[in-house]
Amino acid sequence: MSNQPCENDFSNPVKPENHQIAQQAWAHLDRLTKPPRSLGRVEEIAVQLCSIQKITAPQSHPRSVLIFAGDHGVCEENISAFPQAVTGEMLKNMAGGGAAVSVLSKLHQVDLIVIDVGSMLPSDVTIENVERRVIRAGTRNFTKEAAMTDDEIRSAFDIGKEFIRHEADKNVKLVILGEMGIGNTTSASAISAAILQCPVADITGRGTGVDDEGIQRKISAIEKGLALHQPDPLNGLQIATRVGGYEIAAMAGAILEARDQNIAILLDGFIVTAAALVACSINPDCKFNLIASHSSAEHGHKQLLDFLRLKPLLQLNMRLGEASGALIALPIIDAATAIYHNMATFESAGVSNKKS
Amino acid sequence: MSNQPCENDFSNPVKPENHQIAQQAWAHLDRLTKPPRSLGRVEEIAVQLCSIQKITAPQSHPRSVLIFAGDHGVCEENISAFPQAVTGEMLKNMAGGGAAVSVLSKLHQVDLIVIDVGSMLPSDVTIENVERRVIRAGTRNFTKEAAMTDDEIRSAFDIGKEFIRHEADKNVKLVILGEMGIGNTTSASAISAAILQCPVADITGRGTGVDDEGIQRKISAIEKGLALHQPDPLNGLQIATRVGGYEIAAMAGAILEARDQNIAILLDGFIVTAAALVACSINPDCKFNLIASHSSAEHGHKQLLDFLRLKPLLQLNMRLGEASGALIALPIIDAATAIYHNMATFESAGVSNKKS
Repeated sequence: MSNQPCENDFSNPVKPENHQIAQQAWAHLDRLTKPPRSLGRVEEIAVQLCSIQKITAPQSHPRSVLIFAGDHGVCEENISAFPQAVTGEMLKNMAGGGAAVSVLSKLHQVDLIVIDVGSMLPSDVTIENVERRVIRAGTRNFTKEAAMTDDEIRSAFDIGKEFIRHEADKNVKLVILGEMGIGNTTSASAISAAILQCPVADITGRGTGVDDEGIQRKISAIEKGLALHQPDPLNGLQIATRVGGYEIAAMAGAILEARDQNIAILLDGFIVTAAALVACSINPDCKFNLIASHSSAEHGHKQLLDFLRLKPLLQLNMRLGEASGALIALPIIDAATAIYHNMATFESAGVSNKKS
Repeated sequence: MSNQPCENDFSNPVKPENHQIAQQAWAHLDRLTKPPRSLGRVEEIAVQLCSIQKITAPQSHPRSVLIFAGDHGVCEENISAFPQAVTGEMLKNMAGGGAAVSVLSKLHQVDLIVIDVGSMLPSDVTIENVERRVIRAGTRNFTKEAAMTDDEIRSAFDIGKEFIRHEADKNVKLVILGEMGIGNTTSASAISAAILQCPVADITGRGTGVDDEGIQRKISAIEKGLALHQPDPLNGLQIATRVGGYEIAAMAGAILEARDQNIAILLDGFIVTAAALVACSINPDCKFNLIASHSSAEHGHKQLLDFLRLKPLLQLNMRLGEASGALIALPIIDAATAIYHNMATFESAGVSNKKS
């Protein structure tokens, strides 16, 4: 990927090799009892799913949400509104049913899988319904040294890929990615500034809600980190190693593997989209598998979506993370598949078509 | 209502008399394990539901979709891309399960109630699962005479009110309004131009898909009708009588009654919003009960929403009508109630709150 915005229009992305499948999907949709294309983006999503799944019968079931969690050494710089302990506490809350992701995944019949790839929770702690695959108890403080080693980021990618393969084995058609990690908007902003080559202040927001002084500390920390590491803007892997997080790297790995498994990826907010930037830097073809669920209130998310030419389904001023935006958008994808499969055609329903 | 845009900010509308309920709802939401207000519009919707339902326990079940159908005499002016017979044919398709509204209402567990208040179908035709309450077989051509008599519009309002009372008796908490009627974007544009006092061309779109010549015929027909009737811009009832439709009047009646029954109304697209304009012209308080599901591709819809200060949940370039946009937005309201009722609090989950 060059670090220029993509040239294709990804508002309706179809893999070139699946052009014929997309044409067949459009022909089917145009026979249904509605003015042609009158469901707008909903029809485009149905066609994109056909392209991703390489079949003219798009599916949004079975589906899973994978939450990757990790802690961030850069929290030493006092860049978050919440204490670092919250990452581990929220893992328990997610698994216990009380978090937004727990409530919304239950509402929409989505399997919730929580994977701890790098929280500060002691290694002997087990949490029911949380996969503890901790690479290290938090990344290093990227203002002082690289967040991860090369081996560590490889492990994070491998865990993301492994979980996607596991979902593929279960015949899962759509995976929602989400994250938990106090400090991870700082890491996501650092990755974004490095790849987009934009001023740090332009792409750094309040995360969970830091005040004016906190956001200045956040910007300074990112500027310090980027000045120290001088990463190559075209090398997403290097950037993620230097200033990323274990959960971000695991999500990037998941996206890379989803492409090979013909699985649709529903992105959540800013941090997940930063992981998509990393994945697309490694293999630009990944973009065809991505559906942007929403444009969040987090400063900078819209720029990432524009850079990737992804058109979000929702803009509801959300900024919670943990896949909440993606889960709120999911029923639009369900609607697209239901329309595709269950509506009558003009012929079958005996309805007169448009005047010629 | 003056025919100036409303002054209140209806992006987060709370009935003044329910201010305390709204405060309690916000206090509850702020105790849940998420950064405060981080679910944006979703939280606002939960609070608005509390206000409408006068209770700090918002509900989106049980819910119904009411589809009102009618034909339009102005079709004589060749203003639609589809033949008039489609109104009746689509009633059968809706009841038979093949229409978009049938598929989406089944997907989201919504009772579908189809009411024919004025189609051209012969009066002796019965259709299973369609309530045939025909006031007249189509309105009169408003370019030549008033679309309805005073008695007829009163009947249409009464039918709308009756069906809402019936839903209230069933303890329904949320009603989705939708419509079917070839030619009804012409009628909705005429109503809108009269109330907003804007040029007809500014608020007239392609409906189901008329070509360039068709849209010119449509604009001319509306201009001719408004020149003939010279309706009072402050008198929505008069405007609807002169250039409206039976289904539009029935929906306006439904909205007026929903206010009295503390039922939330989820609006669909341009035509339903034109009915809301009529209802709000008669009783501006109705606005508190309205949730705008989407901003459609139909030219003019955004202007109506802005005039009513309604902030749509979705903008997906949809223009099908028959409640399809509202049904695609409905799960956002379900998510709002699920979040409200089912998330853990910081205290109950033992999660550390924001740094003080």
